Amino acid sequence: MSVKGVAILGSTGSIGRQTLGVIEAACDRFAAVALAAARNVEALAEQARRFRPELAAVLDESLAPELEARLEGAGVRVAAGSQGVAEAATLSGAEVVVGAISGMAGLAPVLAAIRSGKRLALANKEPLVAAGGIVMAEARRCGAEIIPVDSEHSAVFQCLLGHRREEVRRLILTASGGALRDLSQAQLSAVTPRQALAHPTWDMGPKVTVDSATLMNKGLEVIEAQWLFGVPVDAIEVVMHRQSIVHSLVEFVDGATLAQLSQPDMRLPIQYALGFPQRVPIRRGALEMRDLSELTFGAVDLDRYPCLRLAYEAARRGGTAPAALNAADEVAVQAFLAGRIGFLDIARIIESALDQHAPGPADTLERVVAADMEVRRMAHNLLE
Amino acid sequence: MSVKGVAILGSTGSIGRQTLGVIEAACDRFAAVALAAARNVEALAEQARRFRPELAAVLDESLAPELEARLEGAGVRVAAGSQGVAEAATLSGAEVVVGAISGMAGLAPVLAAIRSGKRLALANKEPLVAAGGIVMAEARRCGAEIIPVDSEHSAVFQCLLGHRREEVRRLILTASGGALRDLSQAQLSAVTPRQALAHPTWDMGPKVTVDSATLMNKGLEVIEAQWLFGVPVDAIEVVMHRQSIVHSLVEFVDGATLAQLSQPDMRLPIQYALGFPQRVPIRRGALEMRDLSELTFGAVDLDRYPCLRLAYEAARRGGTAPAALNAADEVAVQAFLAGRIGFLDIARIIESALDQHAPGPADTLERVVAADMEVRRMAHNLLE
Repeated sequence: MSVKGVAILGSTGSIGRQTLGVIEAACDRFAAVALAAARNVEALAEQARRFRPELAAVLDESLAPELEARLEGAGVRVAAGSQGVAEAATLSGAEVVVGAISGMAGLAPVLAAIRSGKRLALANKEPLVAAGGIVMAEARRCGAEIIPVDSEHSAVFQCLLGHRREEVRRLILTASGGALRDLSQAQLSAVTPRQALAHPTWDMGPKVTVDSATLMNKGLEVIEAQWLFGVPVDAIEVVMHRQSIVHSLVEFVDGATLAQLSQPDMRLPIQYALGFPQRVPIRRGALEMRDLSELTFGAVDLDRYPCLRLAYEAARRGGTAPAALNAADEVAVQAFLAGRIGFLDIARIIESALDQHAPGPADTLERVVAADMEVRRMAHNLLE
Repeated sequence: MSVKGVAILGSTGSIGRQTLGVIEAACDRFAAVALAAARNVEALAEQARRFRPELAAVLDESLAPELEARLEGAGVRVAAGSQGVAEAATLSGAEVVVGAISGMAGLAPVLAAIRSGKRLALANKEPLVAAGGIVMAEARRCGAEIIPVDSEHSAVFQCLLGHRREEVRRLILTASGGALRDLSQAQLSAVTPRQALAHPTWDMGPKVTVDSATLMNKGLEVIEAQWLFGVPVDAIEVVMHRQSIVHSLVEFVDGATLAQLSQPDMRLPIQYALGFPQRVPIRRGALEMRDLSELTFGAVDLDRYPCLRLAYEAARRGGTAPAALNAADEVAVQAFLAGRIGFLDIARIIESALDQHAPGPADTLERVVAADMEVRRMAHNLLE
């Protein structure tokens, strides 16, 4: 068994750190050959000293000298800027590239990895949400495989093994309902960022935790699933599943349904994506009988979760509408976390921004980025 | 798409009739080319007149003239005896052979089908329980594929698609608990055959329904799974799952678990086995939200279900022990259904018979059949 080289784009974030944990636990199988981060050079340098990759890259060019200084004598080459991150994404020694730089900043390096024909373990939502058509077309053209790292998409991917697309009738993504699932509408209006950040089952970054509470996270996942699996948006359903044990289900044309289950532990889908097509024999998140004692599933109330409704609408509209949705959400969630707006205002800001955005084709990166910036401006104006 | 020829061994039983139902519903994909039954010539002739197979075979040779008479002018060739059934099992126009003759009588025709390299859709338990080593070795030698028709094994088979055996950590078979799951030990001792036959979720024949109530059915399935999937018996678990929605689960070496779900409808695994490797787009047993509202799983109490314990013991002992288990169970269940013994006596008879049986190697059909007959005699003696 040869050791697989892994490049991690976004190594200092939650997914990046957990990826390094997986590599450490399976060092007979994986080695970090490139690490890239947006700005956190202190953590990046520490990781590089520990894992000794060939290359460490920082997106913010002004921080290159500091990274150089911190890595002096470590035998790790330093690169900087989008050029440097692209170098990490295309390094010849990297067999798998983990795309975990969050936000639109992750789009260009993900495309670079795809264009070099790498296997892409994709955690970054924006490339598929905002530019799914472009990303998937490039992956087909370059023969690059995309293995999702999100627990829901990893679940769907696993259920689809050995099947053809024509055999799929619908995808069913599960949602825990997030931190605020038991609050009344009146209570929701007074929710603080701290309350919204207390996720009942998953430990994640602040933006995605708030997105879990609004179910925008699930909406973005519906849009991602549409691209990843080539399934129309109206064949993708979301069900409430409070226990976060069943990570998603696939119903086939004959009526049979397959589901993937585990305890909520992001290292499992990360490990799966790194090891694919082989499962890595390090047991994580395995189920005990008590985890299975009771599993419940229920319909989602779109009135209570307007963000999910908005995501479906954007997906149906197509073009730049999903990019606009994502941009407006990012601005609104930041404003909520900064205490500038209430929890229920998040959906209102997004809906208004979407109403103002006239979607065009999302056929070039320039158009997608322009729509993203336009909607961010509009959303900021709405905040005033 | 060409029409697949199907031979049904045991066409007048529950699985046989449902198989014909599937063929009728998907007549653009499947055609019955041979029908075989043990004794019910009236039903067999009716089926043959309707489906116009090339061959109709009856196992009981004395009934051949009656079958001939009933099929006069129908253009269906008639065969009889074990030779006749073997002819149905190996007919050149049959691409799939459904093995659904119940009991040890199904063993020889199933082996005949395997030896002619047919794809075998296997519903008959005894070939694997009593002679799993022989059957699997022949299947390997002759390149015959075995697709299970039992809902649990079909579920495991579907979960294993795209995986290698080494990736499997354990199989988890689900059990509804059968008709008597809510009775106390005292109530169990007074149970009538009628009570035992009222299965809460599945509609099946009397022997298997009683076996469901004792959980012997699940024990036989554990032994079958051991052979079908090449997994050691102690890596096969049974869990109580009252809703009969999750038909089984597979845990992989990385901790991830896949499960197959549907409403309990035998036509789904039948259709799957006929169509494999393609799923047939006739939707059966699909899940609605209400089916998923609550799924529960719990440990099985082996004191309450001694038959399951006995099955595990027989599997661990190996050789002819599982054949002995099966033979003793058949005698005991018939005695219970005839009102000769109480419900709790079923396990006692089996345990005593197993204690008296000195297991030998199960490496030839003759040894397996001899063990089977010996234990039947012992069990009958125990009944006296």
